[in-house]
Amino acid sequence: MAEVVAIKRQDAQGPIIIEQTGGTLRLTLANPPANALSLAMMAALQAEIERAGADRSVRVVVLAAPGKVFCAGHDLKELTAHRADADRGRAFFERTFADCSALMQAIVHCPKPVIAEVEGLATAAGLQLVASCDLAVAAHEATFCTPGVHIGLFCSTPMVALSRNASRKQAMEMLLTGETIDAATAKEFGLVNRVVPREYLNQVVNKYAETIASKSPLTLKIGKEAFYRQVEMGLSDAYDYTAGVMVENMLARDAEEGIGAFVGKRKPEWKGE
Amino acid sequence: MAEVVAIKRQDAQGPIIIEQTGGTLRLTLANPPANALSLAMMAALQAEIERAGADRSVRVVVLAAPGKVFCAGHDLKELTAHRADADRGRAFFERTFADCSALMQAIVHCPKPVIAEVEGLATAAGLQLVASCDLAVAAHEATFCTPGVHIGLFCSTPMVALSRNASRKQAMEMLLTGETIDAATAKEFGLVNRVVPREYLNQVVNKYAETIASKSPLTLKIGKEAFYRQVEMGLSDAYDYTAGVMVENMLARDAEEGIGAFVGKRKPEWKGE
Amino acid sequence: MAEVVAIKRQDAQGPIIIEQTGGTLRLTLANPPANALSLAMMAALQAEIERAGADRSVRVVVLAAPGKVFCAGHDLKELTAHRADADRGRAFFERTFADCSALMQAIVHCPKPVIAEVEGLATAAGLQLVASCDLAVAAHEATFCTPGVHIGLFCSTPMVALSRNASRKQAMEMLLTGETIDAATAKEFGLVNRVVPREYLNQVVNKYAETIASKSPLTLKIGKEAFYRQVEMGLSDAYDYTAGVMVENMLARDAEEGIGAFVGKRKPEWKGE
Repeated sequence: MAEVVAIKRQDAQGPIIIEQTGGTLRLTLANPPANALSLAMMAALQAEIERAGADRSVRVVVLAAPGKVFCAGHDLKELTAHRADADRGRAFFERTFADCSALMQAIVHCPKPVIAEVEGLATAAGLQLVASCDLAVAAHEATFCTPGVHIGLFCSTPMVALSRNASRKQAMEMLLTGETIDAATAKEFGLVNRVVPREYLNQVVNKYAETIASKSPLTLKIGKEAFYRQVEMGLSDAYDYTAGVMVENMLARDAEEGIGAFVGKRKPEWKGE
Repeated sequence: MAEVVAIKRQDAQGPIIIEQTGGTLRLTLANPPANALSLAMMAALQAEIERAGADRSVRVVVLAAPGKVFCAGHDLKELTAHRADADRGRAFFERTFADCSALMQAIVHCPKPVIAEVEGLATAAGLQLVASCDLAVAAHEATFCTPGVHIGLFCSTPMVALSRNASRKQAMEMLLTGETIDAATAKEFGLVNRVVPREYLNQVVNKYAETIASKSPLTLKIGKEAFYRQVEMGLSDAYDYTAGVMVENMLARDAEEGIGAFVGKRKPEWKGE
Repeated sequence: MAEVVAIKRQDAQGPIIIEQTGGTLRLTLANPPANALSLAMMAALQAEIERAGADRSVRVVVLAAPGKVFCAGHDLKELTAHRADADRGRAFFERTFADCSALMQAIVHCPKPVIAEVEGLATAAGLQLVASCDLAVAAHEATFCTPGVHIGLFCSTPMVALSRNASRKQAMEMLLTGETIDAATAKEFGLVNRVVPREYLNQVVNKYAETIASKSPLTLKIGKEAFYRQVEMGLSDAYDYTAGVMVENMLARDAEEGIGAFVGKRKPEWKGE
């Protein structure tokens, strides 16, 4: 890999700390105490994720938030304040949930893999962030819930991501009771890949990130896009589609280089994007 | 919650015991020895579930059957008797499987959450009942199977519900071998949420029911309907749909009350349906 | 069951050993050292699976490969050699992935259940073979990976089968990192049904095969086809479809015989296909 360059900056428009080390872009939510997904926070996150998608130096994105709360979802005070609007808040609510849905899909459509690093509590749209990432690693102390049912607002957008990770009864238990699950249960439910001691959380995530950053970015882009497209298709369509993807991937320079290096027992040098 | 009112009656048209305590409606199958899903039993269950859906005093439904057999599926003697019909039973079989599919979908479409309480054996359409519920709690002694393959009749309707709980290979193992799994395996397969000692089964189910009954019925209705609709959509459509659901939910009085109560640190009082 | 007849022959066109014992057809990959899925191997496998589907004496198919490697996926040397073609290999690559997708779907569409018996390493399209089978049993020593990302060629066709077994984050972890999972993890991921000591692997698979071979072949055919069709449908369509399947199944002679035998407490004798 190329020489490691560490860059650290504060996002201009929102409360995110942005650090790049080698090919790993780390986005740290810094909107205490709850890291609420205000409009500003969602806009900042989406902008950074889209920038990362287009930045050749970025190979993988980490979404992190150290401390007791990973992210507690939408900003209820911001939402409540708009009940005083002439339309009782309708326009603001529409914008909030449209922006939120766009952010979650920006993660899924980002050509770079996105890893959630979860140390504390992830609730509602905060859980949705984790569920929307390609991979997630949690500390033993991490907890998860969809508590909207407690306040009369069912977690209907979070459940889109949740129910594409967990099984139906697992998701329904969280949604109907609003109760909190621990990290081990979250792994059982498919919400996270690994549960590790807090003091190693960062290290484990960085190891995943480095492993992925060492791969061909073109190949990762081809594969990630194909994954989420084929998973929504019937079997026959999925095969027709991915067989074509494989042919184009074979004809790309990085596959020629990678397979050549493997057959020739040398290290590959990725060219492409 | 309102004062607890206990009502107990026997269903007029079929073998179900109906008890309501507070917001919890308990439907107990009472068609010994196998609690077979005869036409009468299916009609009675569907009628009660639909009535519960429309009854403002009912917040959650429990499907129970104490004893060794939760439900052994269709009534094979009833089915076999109709082989003597002029059409070799075709019309009767059509009605049986249409009624059964309608019953299972009535559970899914009921605006009130439905919880299965499983103490004993759930087989074939009996397993399908459990799989169709939103939540399920089982005693350690509970067992599950889709044994149709033993008698030349593949469990093709039960597998619709089973394969929307368990993974493909898990479902196929049950379906192809007809073998019985224990409660712990059923939890691993996603068929049940919890496995508890038999002496606490009723208590655990009632705790779930009370938790859910304390929520806004309007919110539960919005959320349950949205869950099963979005789970069949592609990601983009699911977000378009649920973002709209969130806006309408925000504008409903129970969300205004619930969020207001949360921000104001007081208990919410649900109005709505 | 009929008298056990053991037949053993070498496939004419490809490196497969074919053995039939009773109703169990065992196809053993014998293309050392990697059991690579060359065009010849894929053609031979597909031909045998289709022949088994049409052969009334075959009740169940086992795909096996003793030794360290179950199957290492496509033949990279064969693929690489065709880079020298006038079209840089495009036509050959198209044929390879079309044949591979056809083979995997032949397993899914085969009216006889197909069981994978995995003793060693299953990688890329080798893992896809396992994931495409109805059931899979692995030795404790078995390992699994989708390592295409190491060589610039994302495992886009294997992931079609993988993501229909494992959850999204589980599949993505394998695909993005290329890392190897052990047999216990493969069971957790839904890739295999059972993990057993190597010395009992064959015995356990044969027990599954015998159990399934004792069922009505017509019933298995009806059920397997219906399973993979309904799993791609919405709930309402799935019930409309399978309710019809149940009626036809009820009217078939094997269900009449099977239910009659059950009610009459005797052993059924299957007629049908």
